[in-house]
Amino acid sequence: MKNKQLILIVNDDGITAPGIKALINIAKDFGEVVVVAPDSPQSAKGHALTITVPLRLKETDIFGDIKAFECSGTPVDCVKLAKNFVLGNRKIDLCLSGINHGSNVSSNILYSGTMSAAMEASMEGVDSIGFSLLDFSMKADFSQCTAYIKQIIDHELAHGPKTGRLLNVNIPKIAAADIKGIKVCRQANARWKENYVEGTDPYGGKYYWLSGDFVNHDTGEDTDVWALENNYISVVPSMHDLTDHKMLEKMKSDHYQS
Amino acid sequence: MKNKQLILIVNDDGITAPGIKALINIAKDFGEVVVVAPDSPQSAKGHALTITVPLRLKETDIFGDIKAFECSGTPVDCVKLAKNFVLGNRKIDLCLSGINHGSNVSSNILYSGTMSAAMEASMEGVDSIGFSLLDFSMKADFSQCTAYIKQIIDHELAHGPKTGRLLNVNIPKIAAADIKGIKVCRQANARWKENYVEGTDPYGGKYYWLSGDFVNHDTGEDTDVWALENNYISVVPSMHDLTDHKMLEKMKSDHYQS
Repeated sequence: MKNKQLILIVNDDGITAPGIKALINIAKDFGEVVVVAPDSPQSAKGHALTITVPLRLKETDIFGDIKAFECSGTPVDCVKLAKNFVLGNRKIDLCLSGINHGSNVSSNILYSGTMSAAMEASMEGVDSIGFSLLDFSMKADFSQCTAYIKQIIDHELAHGPKTGRLLNVNIPKIAAADIKGIKVCRQANARWKENYVEGTDPYGGKYYWLSGDFVNHDTGEDTDVWALENNYISVVPSMHDLTDHKMLEKMKSDHYQS
Repeated sequence: MKNKQLILIVNDDGITAPGIKALINIAKDFGEVVVVAPDSPQSAKGHALTITVPLRLKETDIFGDIKAFECSGTPVDCVKLAKNFVLGNRKIDLCLSGINHGSNVSSNILYSGTMSAAMEASMEGVDSIGFSLLDFSMKADFSQCTAYIKQIIDHELAHGPKTGRLLNVNIPKIAAADIKGIKVCRQANARWKENYVEGTDPYGGKYYWLSGDFVNHDTGEDTDVWALENNYISVVPSMHDLTDHKMLEKMKSDHYQS
């Protein structure tokens, strides 16, 4: 029965990134895996869509028997093309994104192509999980987190609400034996402090190249940042309703309201 | 005293779009206006950042006495460069984004460069407002909403919490006399139904070009979609904490939790 589950796999590091291969190898034991991933790295593309140029889809056999397509667009474009063309509007049981090479904690969910792809699927009512390992290297070792990723996929397929639950999973870069377990937590109040590299190009033009440090302003022990710093895997249930309901109640007494 | 307020203006339609000019003309009465906007249209770029190529900033006098820069990056890049270089980390009193040519209701806040720029400033603790007129035309008439935009800016400068409140303001495409007022509301549960244009390029390659319809699945009368359909200007207080706190409480009883 398990093999009838349809699992869509996407990422933002591109279809040749080791992280997506690791995720495919884990997921294929749970059902029919179909891959649609960008043909080039698409990190930090957030929820961007491609609208000013046409998109391309190309089937590839780099994953052997696994049906896979590379797409010229963003991670969110991949999800939309997967749904509309590759899967012909078949019901997707689970969307997995990643494994991202690098952290996607806290507000990074907004910048992250990995999480935006998972969010796009969740907006369509598909339970979705984005996985990120806290190791930016393209030689990152994903073996230590395999058992935990299996556990999370298994749990979601069996117990997910099937209503588009979105989970942001981050995994510390430590040996499997040192991982203390899985913590369900909230997004920390943390953000980037930019540190632009300024330079001059070969033609005398000034340029600015984005770099920076991620700074945690949150002392809570119920956050994803805390969990990772304490050797847990963090799982943040996330959503696409960005309404600030507390502020909404407060503002109803403003002069705005008719 | 009013003239001491520092107002940053950004957009996603590009620095030459009529909407940003209309917004500058309204905002300049409230303080010192500084503009940093993309040098090309950046619609649907979401919260994308430019990380693989360097960015450029170029001063321009297209707004006369108003200090203005065009930037080669995304709307979010514009905010980061404004803060770090153009404004040299001066305290920004208010960030305004738009006026967008077209709607940014409901979940469009995630795809929208206009709203992502405002959200980026709000993440830095700056009260921020994104304005959108429900008219995609580059010849859109912004005159009917001038008085309302003035009212909203005036209110925010006087009563904003100064903690990074983010407002998503959408304005119906109707005559000023027909606008019934301003409604503070929640984001509707609505989403895009894609309708890709498929074609063949001059070299025989297949392409897919994104188009679609925005479909409202929400029958509530407290949403932005309802407000606009009933001739109100919608104001949705929004946030960047995407944690699904209800789901978080529910999941704490899952087997995940240690």
